[in-house]
Amino acid sequence: MKQQQPLQPDFEGDFLLNNGAPFPLDSGAVLPQASLRYAIYGKLNEARDNAVLACHALTGSARVADWWQDLFHDRHPLDADKHCVIGINVLGSCYGSTGPTSINPTTGKPYGAEFPVVGIRDMVRAQAELIQHLGIRQLRAILGGSIGGMQALQWTVDFPERVAGCFSVGAAPLSAMGLALNHLQREIIRLDPAWNAGNYTSANPPTRGLALARGLAVCTYKSPALFDERFGRKPDRSGEDPLQSHAARYDAAGYLDYQGRIFNERFDANSYLVISRAMDTFDLSHGYASESEALRRIRARLLVVGISSDWLFPAADVHALAERIQNAHAVCNYIELHGDHGHDAFLAEVSNVRPLIEYIVRSGAPLSLEKTSVPCPA
Amino acid sequence: MKQQQPLQPDFEGDFLLNNGAPFPLDSGAVLPQASLRYAIYGKLNEARDNAVLACHALTGSARVADWWQDLFHDRHPLDADKHCVIGINVLGSCYGSTGPTSINPTTGKPYGAEFPVVGIRDMVRAQAELIQHLGIRQLRAILGGSIGGMQALQWTVDFPERVAGCFSVGAAPLSAMGLALNHLQREIIRLDPAWNAGNYTSANPPTRGLALARGLAVCTYKSPALFDERFGRKPDRSGEDPLQSHAARYDAAGYLDYQGRIFNERFDANSYLVISRAMDTFDLSHGYASESEALRRIRARLLVVGISSDWLFPAADVHALAERIQNAHAVCNYIELHGDHGHDAFLAEVSNVRPLIEYIVRSGAPLSLEKTSVPCPA
Repeated sequence: MKQQQPLQPDFEGDFLLNNGAPFPLDSGAVLPQASLRYAIYGKLNEARDNAVLACHALTGSARVADWWQDLFHDRHPLDADKHCVIGINVLGSCYGSTGPTSINPTTGKPYGAEFPVVGIRDMVRAQAELIQHLGIRQLRAILGGSIGGMQALQWTVDFPERVAGCFSVGAAPLSAMGLALNHLQREIIRLDPAWNAGNYTSANPPTRGLALARGLAVCTYKSPALFDERFGRKPDRSGEDPLQSHAARYDAAGYLDYQGRIFNERFDANSYLVISRAMDTFDLSHGYASESEALRRIRARLLVVGISSDWLFPAADVHALAERIQNAHAVCNYIELHGDHGHDAFLAEVSNVRPLIEYIVRSGAPLSLEKTSVPCPA
Repeated sequence: MKQQQPLQPDFEGDFLLNNGAPFPLDSGAVLPQASLRYAIYGKLNEARDNAVLACHALTGSARVADWWQDLFHDRHPLDADKHCVIGINVLGSCYGSTGPTSINPTTGKPYGAEFPVVGIRDMVRAQAELIQHLGIRQLRAILGGSIGGMQALQWTVDFPERVAGCFSVGAAPLSAMGLALNHLQREIIRLDPAWNAGNYTSANPPTRGLALARGLAVCTYKSPALFDERFGRKPDRSGEDPLQSHAARYDAAGYLDYQGRIFNERFDANSYLVISRAMDTFDLSHGYASESEALRRIRARLLVVGISSDWLFPAADVHALAERIQNAHAVCNYIELHGDHGHDAFLAEVSNVRPLIEYIVRSGAPLSLEKTSVPCPA
């Protein structure tokens, strides 16, 4: 189903948040100036009710068709002639929005390790400002997996009248095991001799640490069954013999090393630390008296999807979140994807995801806002 | 159930393998000289049929009561007045047997990173020489969990007439995910700036890398459910706030850091690499035409135990191994331990393990060797 060349956006640009004034974060820290890189596929219609926001996961970008290409296949579920599909790079990333590789106007140097903690709420608040600037009163649908799903859910809580439909897959507050494995990934990066307390140069970044962190992350994104099927106990395909030498690897190890190597070509270590921490801290109760108070704000129709073989965000955790949303009287359906792809299923098995997104995009007709009255957060 | 002070061995000593001549390994490498540290609780009876060999896991020692203390509790299942319980430190370890911290007689310096690849078969062949030296014709039982269980199983294949009963828990050929996670642990150690290609000094060992590797290993030894119960999403108990600072941790992360720190007080990084590789390579077909040929050699009664929450050695993998053993017409029972402790259950929930070991030790009456005729490997 993969097309040779991903669909190109009709527009790509940068949006200066807060008219260039400082952008405050939930942590209390302030970004002296911040901007968002965004991409648009298609055009806003006259009624301005055809906008779909697709939120990317940890290492994605605003260019939705680069990482969720198959959603545009055969014009289903996303059709650039019918929908206005928007991707926004998250704060903290290295794909164009303000992040650790950006120049800190206060010092004239890249933020590097000085970049503050950013939460999912910060990312979403920034996105909401851009969506307002685009003249979109209400998103027809908001979509996302993993951290992208967290953003989608956070939108429905923080800006309830501005989202009609929400599709979130493989997202829930991270469990203790997930928190532990994220911590180890960050510490592995910090162990790299090139790390230099985060003040590495672009000429000498902590490539080995980032590669190993990515290797561990890849383990958490895939299922043991998939690894068994793909690699089994075979030695590395280059002909190494683990029985003879400590340097020799099994095939699964060679795969992780390869994934780590190519990841270095496209990602920054400090950005990894910032966004991985945002994954850690996701909790819909933030800013509200309780999670149930937060969830009672939701007005969108939700489709919350768990993945049976996901061990980073176990389906049971996603299901439990969906039940809490239902208990808060939101219109929320839960569906479980079955398969061996693990957390990555929302990217690796898009054919299963397409009809579910189609359902939400089609049913995401404008909410009658008269019936609702939910204040946006201050 | 924990006693204040672990039972002390009645004897501790070192045994020089091969009369001090070089000890050849399956890899083709040769140790110029090798010895085993061993410990004995109780005494061999006149019939020499009361010997129980307890094999330790990755980081254990010959002092069985130090890590499996509760097996001696209330004289069940092990009774130093009745049994002769033997512990033998594995080749490659840093607890007294020849390993990377030993002096290489050829160079006069510690082996360090030059220590060759050692397999479970090498460990077991060395143990068998010591057991023969002790005048024990047949072990009443051999016990072990994890790598200890691998050794126990390997004994029943390589020295079938010399083992009456075998208890193995949480052991099977490692899956692709396990191989991947072991690889990452070793690479993390090698990433430490103090690693120095394995030629670190005892004054400056790669403590940060070893601590992180141990942290990752601890994740694989415990279950997500146990982590959720113990740590949940609580911040580190020292009062850190992950919402404010990149350096702040969740409680699960603080726990891993602590486990890593105390591990450095008792383990050597090169030994970790050697024994972790032995875990990787375990495969009962080694040295035989096929696994089924190997398994058909077994004469002992086996109790093979899986742990429901073990994700390093999934119960399904252990069960499948038990079925292959049964298909080879060995007397083999499979039992599954249920609980949330993960792989570590054989150490953390000893009360569940005690009756199973008691069963094997009691039923491990001498085999009538006349009926069997299985040659030992050359």
